[in-house]
Amino acid sequence: MAFPLSFIITKSQMLSTSDHASVVSMNLFVALLCACIVIGHLLEENRWMNESITALLIGICTGVVIMLTTGGKSSHVLVFSEDLFFIYLLPPIIFNAGFQVKKKQFFRNFITITLFGAVGTLISCVIISLGATQIFKRMDLGSLDIGDYLAIGAIFSATDSVCTLQVLNQDETPLLYSLVFGEGVVNDATSVVLFNAIQSFDVTNIDPTIVLHLFGNFFYLFFTSTLLGVLAGLITAYIIRKLYFGKHSTDREVALMMLMAYLSYMLAELFYLSGILTVFFCGIVMSHYTWHNVTESSRITTKHAFATFSFVSEIFIFLYVGMDALDIEKWRLVSKSPGISVAVSSILLGLILVGRAAFVFPLSFLSNLAKKSPNEKISFKQQFTIWWAGLMRGAVSMALAYNQFTRAGYTQLRGNAIMITSTITVVLFSTVVFGLMTKPIIRWLLPPRQSSSTLSSDPSSPKLVTVPLLGSGRDSEVDLSGHDIPRPSSLRILLTAPTHTVHRCWRKFDDTFMRPVFGGRGFVPYVPCSPTERSVN
Amino acid sequence: MAFPLSFIITKSQMLSTSDHASVVSMNLFVALLCACIVIGHLLEENRWMNESITALLIGICTGVVIMLTTGGKSSHVLVFSEDLFFIYLLPPIIFNAGFQVKKKQFFRNFITITLFGAVGTLISCVIISLGATQIFKRMDLGSLDIGDYLAIGAIFSATDSVCTLQVLNQDETPLLYSLVFGEGVVNDATSVVLFNAIQSFDVTNIDPTIVLHLFGNFFYLFFTSTLLGVLAGLITAYIIRKLYFGKHSTDREVALMMLMAYLSYMLAELFYLSGILTVFFCGIVMSHYTWHNVTESSRITTKHAFATFSFVSEIFIFLYVGMDALDIEKWRLVSKSPGISVAVSSILLGLILVGRAAFVFPLSFLSNLAKKSPNEKISFKQQFTIWWAGLMRGAVSMALAYNQFTRAGYTQLRGNAIMITSTITVVLFSTVVFGLMTKPIIRWLLPPRQSSSTLSSDPSSPKLVTVPLLGSGRDSEVDLSGHDIPRPSSLRILLTAPTHTVHRCWRKFDDTFMRPVFGGRGFVPYVPCSPTERSVN
Repeated sequence: MAFPLSFIITKSQMLSTSDHASVVSMNLFVALLCACIVIGHLLEENRWMNESITALLIGICTGVVIMLTTGGKSSHVLVFSEDLFFIYLLPPIIFNAGFQVKKKQFFRNFITITLFGAVGTLISCVIISLGATQIFKRMDLGSLDIGDYLAIGAIFSATDSVCTLQVLNQDETPLLYSLVFGEGVVNDATSVVLFNAIQSFDVTNIDPTIVLHLFGNFFYLFFTSTLLGVLAGLITAYIIRKLYFGKHSTDREVALMMLMAYLSYMLAELFYLSGILTVFFCGIVMSHYTWHNVTESSRITTKHAFATFSFVSEIFIFLYVGMDALDIEKWRLVSKSPGISVAVSSILLGLILVGRAAFVFPLSFLSNLAKKSPNEKISFKQQFTIWWAGLMRGAVSMALAYNQFTRAGYTQLRGNAIMITSTITVVLFSTVVFGLMTKPIIRWLLPPRQSSSTLSSDPSSPKLVTVPLLGSGRDSEVDLSGHDIPRPSSLRILLTAPTHTVHRCWRKFDDTFMRPVFGGRGFVPYVPCSPTERSVN
Repeated sequence: MAFPLSFIITKSQMLSTSDHASVVSMNLFVALLCACIVIGHLLEENRWMNESITALLIGICTGVVIMLTTGGKSSHVLVFSEDLFFIYLLPPIIFNAGFQVKKKQFFRNFITITLFGAVGTLISCVIISLGATQIFKRMDLGSLDIGDYLAIGAIFSATDSVCTLQVLNQDETPLLYSLVFGEGVVNDATSVVLFNAIQSFDVTNIDPTIVLHLFGNFFYLFFTSTLLGVLAGLITAYIIRKLYFGKHSTDREVALMMLMAYLSYMLAELFYLSGILTVFFCGIVMSHYTWHNVTESSRITTKHAFATFSFVSEIFIFLYVGMDALDIEKWRLVSKSPGISVAVSSILLGLILVGRAAFVFPLSFLSNLAKKSPNEKISFKQQFTIWWAGLMRGAVSMALAYNQFTRAGYTQLRGNAIMITSTITVVLFSTVVFGLMTKPIIRWLLPPRQSSSTLSSDPSSPKLVTVPLLGSGRDSEVDLSGHDIPRPSSLRILLTAPTHTVHRCWRKFDDTFMRPVFGGRGFVPYVPCSPTERSVN
């Protein structure tokens, strides 16, 4: 059992300083995580702060302290690593989002979400790329080629789902949450297609075949990623249901759910699919089927353990970004021309604002056109909030900028250094300023009374709002089962609410074919010896 | 949100093949972990198998398949990494062991455990070192110096706690479990002192001052490591109790407990203490105080989440060891002289058997001398089982051997290659053969009726056994609180059972000073607004 044994051997042999330095930085990091949790708890009553901004500020303060104590030599304890971010920190956050998402709300707005995520990202990317090309070419920025400008468009049109999760509350503003967060998830698939396109096609020579090809690619990617996530969830549900894991071990069930979810993400990565989309749908399927097959203690454990993972990963990311922001190396190269750096950051922020406005308002208008009932339309105030809440750029943008503009975290080119520092500035500014103002803006534009009715903008009576929406504020599937609410007898209602018909068909299919095989909330007759039953008795 | 974006950029730029290869191996590894869980569940009824042997065998089979498909080029998908093992896999296992250990049983046998762990390891290390020096010097093994022989002693006297957890059952054989597992934990501190001694002192010139110095070092290390773990646990308990975390968030409580436990381990590593000892005591303190301060759902979550982590880490280690065992590189160097390799492995196995026997039986005899009551003595059958159950060598021995005999996983010296392959052989043989036979041996030597009375060897009446032991089979603290059992009025009982007096003093101190500050099982009057209460109501 001699652990420090090996450590001391190592120390005495060769790796001494670097090994011990990494232990020091891990200690510091874990201690800071604890501090963030405690301080975040103490500040919870504060209407301005949230956990991500606390972590970001603590990260910056630590960076300053380290910089001062080391005499300006370094300011960060860990080098920003994309692998750490994409392989370990992001999957639990997105999986938990899928696991805890209000499924009804998400699928009800599925078309709007896809529109925002696919077409919206494309519009935003094009506007930012074009704007950057036109403006930056006239400035003295050094060597940036067409690929760099396209990358800038992709980097700054990536909505940060992690920030969204922090500033929007699923219970208070379910519509906004599902729209902005869902957009971020779909966004991922779009970006893959865009980048594949940029790399494999001749962009200067666009003809309709290529556009068709791109559409084909997008749908292929979207459906295979989703399918993979759904399959992973269903297989887990089937295994746990058929092998009666609950009979023996909560640990096995929890471990299997975690590992299968992670496997789906890694498989998607393996086949160059969208891992985020996959693990998100895996979370949805697991919460719909698998979660109901396990023992009571497994349910509590998975619910809270996944949330805890996601919570720690989020704090970790913000702390990381905050500490990394003050890295001296990058700022030294741009310190001779502070004006240009500020100008570039401001221009990028402006382009982000314009690029997002250019698709949120037109696409909301389109989405409203398709909806007959005024209650289902997205009001202007809601559009404004959607625009605002999606402005934050976070760790994803940082990771992409590092990937595009540095080699192994370092750069010597002035143009690249300016892009890195500008990305950091944009991320910090948007997260802190836009993030701080999101809560007050939501409270001001959408007071609690209204926002709880989610899709409605006019203060009609609660009853009138609730009935056509079939309780959309809560994920109340039992109310929608067809027992409590009379079936719509007139064609008018079917036309007004086509999603309800889809929902009813799905429910019938689910009850007849899916649940008897894969389990699910107590809707089909109980199998007397199912693990769920046993754990309750 | 564009994750595969970065992946594709990376792919197209520079890291393409290596990056994708690591994704492939992670996929394979996660899939194998899932397979181990499912197969382990299916084989649970089998009296011979356990999860670790299943994982080991699956690992070996996978290694064979990979070797055949790649045409003998490589057999493992991940290179054995000590960092992965000591920084990520080991802490959750040891923490969970401390968290779920039967505290009463552990502290009751504390002196015996320390004797086994400290003196026993020293004896075993000396015997194996001397034996190896004498025998291997006469064989043609290439260059091995005195440091290597001492390292061999340390490598093969390290009891593998992870194996112990797998083959011994805390509920069936609590005494054996606490002795063998506790020995493994204390063993760690001993090894640190031994290695410090080997490196800093002139071993050829031993005088009483140095021996005293060594003793001083051992006690310093033991107490500082323990203190650090206890402090980490108490601070967590205090923070959670005082800040009323339960009022708001289960996630925060669970995250804080996990992070503080990990912090204690890393701090111990930072100060060159025994991280295993620290995190073990941190687990004990957290289960005694912290766990009782959190909400009901946090309790269920921590209990199962920690167990799941530990479970997955254990399977991971055995799978890893199994896959790594067939690495062609190492076997190629020794393939010219298979006879020597077999001989070295057999000699090492023999030395392990002798070295362990040389301290288990004498020290048990000493321990029995100190005990007046025949019920508390360790019977010969129990001594035999203790000897047997601690024979397994596992991932710790592998990690140490790699550290001593290779540079970054590779070696060109024949002597070193022989030591590596012999270590692998010893680990595989001891885990599979000794591991497979442990369950039947325990069932044969200590049938359930007897082993449930733990400290007794003669078949006296259950009542006579249970009363003097104060319910040692269960961790029933409430029974021992002094309310149910009359205080011992005669000096004779005090002399017969000195640990009971210690226990009573501790309990008084705990109730008067500790629990009012740090919380704990419902023993002090409830604070009406404590989080525990609120979660129940």
